[in-house]
Amino acid sequence: MREWLRQLELSVPIIQAPMAGGPTTPGLVAAVCEAGGLGSIAGGYLTPGALEENIAAVRSMTHRPFAVNLFIPERPTWNEADAVQAQERLNGVRAQLGIPPQSAPAELPDEAFTQKFEIVLAARPRVLSFTFGALCREQIDALHDRGIRVFGTATTVAEGIALANLGVDAVVAQGAEAGGHRGTFLTPFADALVGTMALVPQMCDAITRPVIAAGGIMDGRGVAAALALGAAAVQMGTAFLTTVEAGTHPAYRAAILQSEDTSTTLTCAFSGKPARGIKNAFIADYEQSPGDVMPYPLQNAMTRDIRQAAGRQGDPRFMSMWAGQGAKLARPERAGELIERVMRECAEIVRDINGHW
Amino acid sequence: MREWLRQLELSVPIIQAPMAGGPTTPGLVAAVCEAGGLGSIAGGYLTPGALEENIAAVRSMTHRPFAVNLFIPERPTWNEADAVQAQERLNGVRAQLGIPPQSAPAELPDEAFTQKFEIVLAARPRVLSFTFGALCREQIDALHDRGIRVFGTATTVAEGIALANLGVDAVVAQGAEAGGHRGTFLTPFADALVGTMALVPQMCDAITRPVIAAGGIMDGRGVAAALALGAAAVQMGTAFLTTVEAGTHPAYRAAILQSEDTSTTLTCAFSGKPARGIKNAFIADYEQSPGDVMPYPLQNAMTRDIRQAAGRQGDPRFMSMWAGQGAKLARPERAGELIERVMRECAEIVRDINGHW
Repeated sequence: MREWLRQLELSVPIIQAPMAGGPTTPGLVAAVCEAGGLGSIAGGYLTPGALEENIAAVRSMTHRPFAVNLFIPERPTWNEADAVQAQERLNGVRAQLGIPPQSAPAELPDEAFTQKFEIVLAARPRVLSFTFGALCREQIDALHDRGIRVFGTATTVAEGIALANLGVDAVVAQGAEAGGHRGTFLTPFADALVGTMALVPQMCDAITRPVIAAGGIMDGRGVAAALALGAAAVQMGTAFLTTVEAGTHPAYRAAILQSEDTSTTLTCAFSGKPARGIKNAFIADYEQSPGDVMPYPLQNAMTRDIRQAAGRQGDPRFMSMWAGQGAKLARPERAGELIERVMRECAEIVRDINGHW
Repeated sequence: MREWLRQLELSVPIIQAPMAGGPTTPGLVAAVCEAGGLGSIAGGYLTPGALEENIAAVRSMTHRPFAVNLFIPERPTWNEADAVQAQERLNGVRAQLGIPPQSAPAELPDEAFTQKFEIVLAARPRVLSFTFGALCREQIDALHDRGIRVFGTATTVAEGIALANLGVDAVVAQGAEAGGHRGTFLTPFADALVGTMALVPQMCDAITRPVIAAGGIMDGRGVAAALALGAAAVQMGTAFLTTVEAGTHPAYRAAILQSEDTSTTLTCAFSGKPARGIKNAFIADYEQSPGDVMPYPLQNAMTRDIRQAAGRQGDPRFMSMWAGQGAKLARPERAGELIERVMRECAEIVRDINGHW
């Protein structure tokens, strides 16, 4: 497993999770790479042009390897009348934010996956990671042909086995504690909420590829625990949200730093796909009275103006503040300091336990 | 923390979780104690006489310290008509099992808590652990006056702080992965599903008492991970269900050994209180069409004849097969072998990580 890290030219077993929608700046990605970890450009919501700019920006700041993350596209079908009703419900929120109501359902955004995939092939980052589904074997082969390693995201052992059978180089095992969208793609969502402590060892037993642990890992304790469970590396998202280099909105940052262990919940209300974030008025409203939520990514497109207005107004009631169950453990520091501290803590913890047991 | 284990006369940081309703035999408790861990008599559902017999039986098999676990009693109120309807729904299951229908709501069982508490005070086990609520300060003082250590169960940091403020000697942090009933008593149940990876370090930061990690810990990887997260010890339940000494029904045992990471779910259907167990027909029926469930412990009393008949007939469709999300990692072996193997694995893992990071 360490040979595998060496091949990736990583000096620490830490991957910065791709956090789409703002927090993942090229500066954050580069800082993680410079500290010996693997930074990940969050390509999921970027336009092809923005993806190219992000790759160029990261390359201007570091010569170390980095990853690009893409979302496997989904093309749901829906009923026009349902979409109008979903917009009507959202108009109540728009009124509170003083932005114009919408009547027509938003257009399904062009995710431009094929274009972005071609950009990745040409740019040859060290790693292409993906979530929300699986690449096909031909796509994986094309990446491998260009020397690009491929990491897939799984929330259950069955999903991990499916990815391993497709030929991915490593599987990110996303435990139920993880912030942001669930990467679930084969298992029903409700069944795919396995805690990191239970998921990682079972994944390690089931597949021969390296397993990357994600979910609730915030400091040296979490990294040491994940390595003990058999993970080859960890993927940390929430811990990086409060770093200096992250593009996290100040109100979102404050909400993380003021959170408790019970501050997050899973919601479909923002995007149509279950994601873990800090509870706020928007989430509470849909929890209290469920329904009127369109499938992903339509709901995500429909709430975009709301999330953007909430951001402009600094109003955390209507922002999507994705975070994991360990959010309280986040600290304001530089990404490089975070990585250095976490690895120091990890080494101390392991030395101490080794000295006793 | 290790001084604390020494005071408890434990040579390994492993507590066998009290598993009420059959699996926890005196032989299992004694075997765990003999292996250097802390066995726990599951006193929750025992009559006072049976509790005395269990304590005597354990003492006849080991001179080492052990724990007794009690449930904090609850006295819910309910509507007679609802109880009749709940019985009617259960009559459908009774018909499938060929046992007589019930029309009257079951009597609320006399949990005989006061009598059992007096028995514990007189018997002076090393530890009294409790769940489903909190002892009052006077009860904790009475235990301490007799040299009995007190462990409480918390599913959130807020609950852990409440227990620490009452003067418990240690807090069992029960992560969302854990099998069996949730110990939640202050936090709303839906909010109290924090994964072990996130819960344990936050609990350790919040209280000065030792934290005992529970939930998804099945082998040396889990023990090493829990110690890394800051736990002073672990509490393992599901791992002991398949040991030779456990009283686990053969069909229940088989279901554990054949389980997957996604085999368990949380249900109120058997007892009125959320508990994690292996999915079967009984749970699926209430999941598909929720409702007609009385509050704990009335629902538990009402399903008793069903669970007993299912046990007699060896029919896992209607048995409550409590298990955690790590169930797949359980092995058939002796309890002492389990403990020895787990500690050997833990030491190897920690030595290996220490050698590298």
